[in-house]
Amino acid sequence: MKKIIALGILALSIAGTASAQVKPEDQIRYRQAGYSFMSWNMGKIKGSLEGQYNDQQVQAAANAIAAIAGSGMSVLYGPGTEKNIGNIKTRVKPEFFDPANAQDVGKIATEFNAAATSLAKAAAEGDKAAVQKAFGETGAGCKACHDKYRAD
Amino acid sequence: MKKIIALGILALSIAGTASAQVKPEDQIRYRQAGYSFMSWNMGKIKGSLEGQYNDQQVQAAANAIAAIAGSGMSVLYGPGTEKNIGNIKTRVKPEFFDPANAQDVGKIATEFNAAATSLAKAAAEGDKAAVQKAFGETGAGCKACHDKYRAD
Repeated sequence: MKKIIALGILALSIAGTASAQVKPEDQIRYRQAGYSFMSWNMGKIKGSLEGQYNDQQVQAAANAIAAIAGSGMSVLYGPGTEKNIGNIKTRVKPEFFDPANAQDVGKIATEFNAAATSLAKAAAEGDKAAVQKAFGETGAGCKACHDKYRAD
Repeated sequence: MKKIIALGILALSIAGTASAQVKPEDQIRYRQAGYSFMSWNMGKIKGSLEGQYNDQQVQAAANAIAAIAGSGMSVLYGPGTEKNIGNIKTRVKPEFFDPANAQDVGKIATEFNAAATSLAKAAAEGDKAAVQKAFGETGAGCKACHDKYRAD
């Protein structure tokens, strides 16, 4: 768990220098793009788990999810991104930005990253049972954040 | 070159089974999400090359670009995705879907994937000069497609 938290802090520090130039509306766009693209790839893995297992497709999809999850998206929640900006809508709840929840948000993000990394590892090893388990954990990570911090 | 083409064909076959269930408007959304997220990560690498080089940020960004590029996005250009669908706008040109251009489109995609893979490899090795070179080639791959197949 210490290692996971350290990774989370590392991810934040990796990302820390990058966002200054990105406008708030673009931060919202980019974070939504990341989640949307992960969603497509989760769908492909789901299809493979429920139908005929396509090893290479699962690997490619899991790599995309893990790499997006590990790309330092926390910087895309900068000041000004807590509400709609013109046509750019966001469903993030104010609670997400409450410093009292920072630790909880960080924990969810770190566990999500860890699950996505496990998913990519299981996929690379072609271990369908492990993929199934890590897929469930990754999906649970999505849901944990949506349930608490995303408006319907 | 044979290997690159083989990889391209492989990428197509990996992706081939996955798109049947994805609605055309979602195919457009997902492909735009992928390009948008790659664009953010290209920007981070550019910032690192032009300013203070952040090894871990470049690695994370290059991994995201390579994994998205390698995720089989060609299936996101299915029937019905050649034009706007309601509010979902696309700038793809009809020429992109012309069978006469299939080989050219495949070549651009395959070379782009190869450049993105080189970028991730160079980043993993911490070789800034190689990152610079592969970053240029990756950007050239974006531009090659935009110039020919994307409307302004």
